Amino acid sequence: MSLADLNARIAAVNDVLCASSVLVWDSRTMMPAGGAASRSHQIATLTGLARDLLIADDTRRALDGAERAVAGLPEDHPDRRSVAAVREAVAFHSRIPAALVARRAAVRGLANAAWVQARATNDFALFTPHLEATLALAREFADAAGWQDHPYDALLQLYEPGESITSLRRLFARLRDGLAPILQAARARTPRTDFLHRGFAEEGQRAVARSFAQRLGYDFARGRLDTTVHPFEVSFTREDVRITTRYRPDALAPALFGAMHETGHALYEQNIDPAYTRTALATDLMGLYAVGGTSFGVHESQSRLWENHVGRSRSFWRLHFAEVRNVFPDALGDVDASTFHAAVNAASPGLIRTEADELTYDFHIMLRVELEASLIAGDIAVADIPGAWAAAMREQLGLEVPDDRSGCLQDIHWSSGMIGSFCSYTIGNVMAAQLFAAARGQVAGLDDALARGDYAPLRDWLRAQVWQHGRRFGRDEILRRATGSGLSPEPYLGYLSAKFASG
Amino acid sequence: MSLADLNARIAAVNDVLCASSVLVWDSRTMMPAGGAASRSHQIATLTGLARDLLIADDTRRALDGAERAVAGLPEDHPDRRSVAAVREAVAFHSRIPAALVARRAAVRGLANAAWVQARATNDFALFTPHLEATLALAREFADAAGWQDHPYDALLQLYEPGESITSLRRLFARLRDGLAPILQAARARTPRTDFLHRGFAEEGQRAVARSFAQRLGYDFARGRLDTTVHPFEVSFTREDVRITTRYRPDALAPALFGAMHETGHALYEQNIDPAYTRTALATDLMGLYAVGGTSFGVHESQSRLWENHVGRSRSFWRLHFAEVRNVFPDALGDVDASTFHAAVNAASPGLIRTEADELTYDFHIMLRVELEASLIAGDIAVADIPGAWAAAMREQLGLEVPDDRSGCLQDIHWSSGMIGSFCSYTIGNVMAAQLFAAARGQVAGLDDALARGDYAPLRDWLRAQVWQHGRRFGRDEILRRATGSGLSPEPYLGYLSAKFASG
Repeated sequence: MSLADLNARIAAVNDVLCASSVLVWDSRTMMPAGGAASRSHQIATLTGLARDLLIADDTRRALDGAERAVAGLPEDHPDRRSVAAVREAVAFHSRIPAALVARRAAVRGLANAAWVQARATNDFALFTPHLEATLALAREFADAAGWQDHPYDALLQLYEPGESITSLRRLFARLRDGLAPILQAARARTPRTDFLHRGFAEEGQRAVARSFAQRLGYDFARGRLDTTVHPFEVSFTREDVRITTRYRPDALAPALFGAMHETGHALYEQNIDPAYTRTALATDLMGLYAVGGTSFGVHESQSRLWENHVGRSRSFWRLHFAEVRNVFPDALGDVDASTFHAAVNAASPGLIRTEADELTYDFHIMLRVELEASLIAGDIAVADIPGAWAAAMREQLGLEVPDDRSGCLQDIHWSSGMIGSFCSYTIGNVMAAQLFAAARGQVAGLDDALARGDYAPLRDWLRAQVWQHGRRFGRDEILRRATGSGLSPEPYLGYLSAKFASG
Repeated sequence: MSLADLNARIAAVNDVLCASSVLVWDSRTMMPAGGAASRSHQIATLTGLARDLLIADDTRRALDGAERAVAGLPEDHPDRRSVAAVREAVAFHSRIPAALVARRAAVRGLANAAWVQARATNDFALFTPHLEATLALAREFADAAGWQDHPYDALLQLYEPGESITSLRRLFARLRDGLAPILQAARARTPRTDFLHRGFAEEGQRAVARSFAQRLGYDFARGRLDTTVHPFEVSFTREDVRITTRYRPDALAPALFGAMHETGHALYEQNIDPAYTRTALATDLMGLYAVGGTSFGVHESQSRLWENHVGRSRSFWRLHFAEVRNVFPDALGDVDASTFHAAVNAASPGLIRTEADELTYDFHIMLRVELEASLIAGDIAVADIPGAWAAAMREQLGLEVPDDRSGCLQDIHWSSGMIGSFCSYTIGNVMAAQLFAAARGQVAGLDDALARGDYAPLRDWLRAQVWQHGRRFGRDEILRRATGSGLSPEPYLGYLSAKFASG
């Protein structure tokens, strides 16, 4: 058995996981209501088959041979990294009993339905037993996977390999300290935003969303833009990377910035080295998910970089506002580029994470991560969540939570069993600022290019530093190679301060 | 191991095959061009996994136990039929070497690309070596599967279980004899058809296609109608059955009759007994295809029944023509229901199968089936095809074939390795007439109901006699139970004669 045998096995795993992602995409964009029950069987079966293929004896035998074959290569050679990733994933999945996987899937189905019901009726008690079961299984999963300092660390590995609650708390402490005065200063400014909530016909929004995605570099020959309730990006190899956005008749910003956000994710996937297609360097074998990006946080850094550092910049709107006004002459006739730019950067604390501005978003994340870690450790109980939520919102954002629907029932993540994933949003914000600052330092004339609407130099730098590598390098390796430093919140705080606390 | 174990294995096989069908649907309706190469890997992997699951030792063990469990049940009990279907499929796939499956898949990929090129450039020689390889592998497949009288019989089993070239030739001889005088008489009539080729905006065609599908009983809550080049129906369990049609700006009939045709297929799938979902009674385990219909011919009988016996009937247009004219007042202002009905029933021999009318369609099929059987037996060579094609078209339809594009290069089937499938079109025509005649004989007031646009009585009869049974009964069992006779062309010839040679 050779490296080629292992690669053939992993290619099949990637095929199955890509197929599963097609089924998920379809279920969120195209599927008729009747298809839901069959579809969840189909997705569960495919995920189970991918796991079975991965830990099968044939894969282990191929892995042994492949390890011998790559032993002489440099440690960071793609083949060696690829083989190591398979070894790690085989060991990981072998530690997780199949029965536990099945129980988690079963609880997820019920929890999701209960959450939908609980949110609709604003009744946290309906969701309580399901969340308790979800957390108990997550803890069981953490214990099976293994951990040293804190059981939450085991869950973090699926989203942010190498991350720990200890280092997250260090990061969060610095962020809280750094963000507080900026938020204080920003609250003094109340730019006009009324025009963002006039009538915007869907057809026009769709045209602008498409145009912006294309301008930023999204390749429609290897993708498509559709409509969903909750926007997302998904890839079935780099040759088919799809994005979605939503269109609200009374709001322009969600569609535009949603499209730019998902475009950022898509640029990452569309620009992975083609040689990595259907390999372990373009497959999340731990999470059993067909994704080329190396962690959820790195992925989020790409979406946030394009959404915020490019899409919410002064130069972007100086250049592109006229196009939007041409599409919506009635709604935006009395607005100029500068006013529009100020409006899409207005900061104001709110209760809903997905509607949060750049300055308060991380508070929503930190609240959730702290709660999750305490729940998994058993330090607090599910019944304590509403109170803890309200206290944190009051203390950190000065807001009262009127009901659980606007509080702890707002996110789908817990009902989906995704405990440990929230930190990636803040890591993405932090890392986006690090990478954008590094690009500006390293690419001569980058600001001028961006001011001209020439996004190719930024893309070229990101392709070289981040995108092409797929999962060959981990998050911190990418950061060190690109910026000379590990994860650091200082560029992010500097960026936010410049944007919100000055001028 | 029990029946439940076997059912769980087969449910997983169905899940994988449904997933594969989603990928096929997506590739023909939604997928960006770039996705093609990855997609064919994904589909091939899923089909291979379905086969592996089916013939795995665990399945065989469960099968042994299940056979003991159902041994005391009546022979036609769903469980017993289900277990028998698995046994037959396991035995069948065990006879076909995995290497042969892989070689066929490889040849199919190349043959398809060569055919596209050959058809575009009207160059049969480009396709010749690929067709030779396809036929050689089909013959190898037939020999591995096993046959008694003729190797072509082995290929027919995948589409029409129990069918043979001997009985097809008997059927064809009667059809040729019976059709000739009807065609002769029909040629004397040349109804007006000019208005079918005026301008018809896509939006209007789509509205009518949707409306007609809904009227006939298609459940949009468990399906959707999309646009494709080559219309088709596909199901991912009965809860998600999708149809497609196409819209030509200069022709109305293809969209309307295409939609009704696919609606007929969809009604079959949407009305299979829900208890059969994810079982062998709703999965083609021989062909590894997620379909609930019991043979390609029975499936085609449902599409042709709704397209022709309902959709091309005088009473249908008496009732519904006004709706179409309201959508297209400019194009159809000078037309009445009776003129429209005559136009959509005009018969005139042509070179292209997919454009053929009811009266000449079967000649196209018979030509192809005879050629395939001779090719598989080695009685003629690939190089003989164009000559044999031209001779048959001249003799049977009195037409000269100007080029291979209008002749032997027109169909995709051979390039897809589908040798043996064509007969199902004619079997569908024959069977549709048998079933429709039986329904009229058995359902009191059926003609009146249809004349009122009440399609429920016809649906109820078809559900009871055909749809609900899924794959529990074979074609001839269904025919005998519903009509008291096996496959017989007489009702079909009677129907065609009444429609085309009289009045």
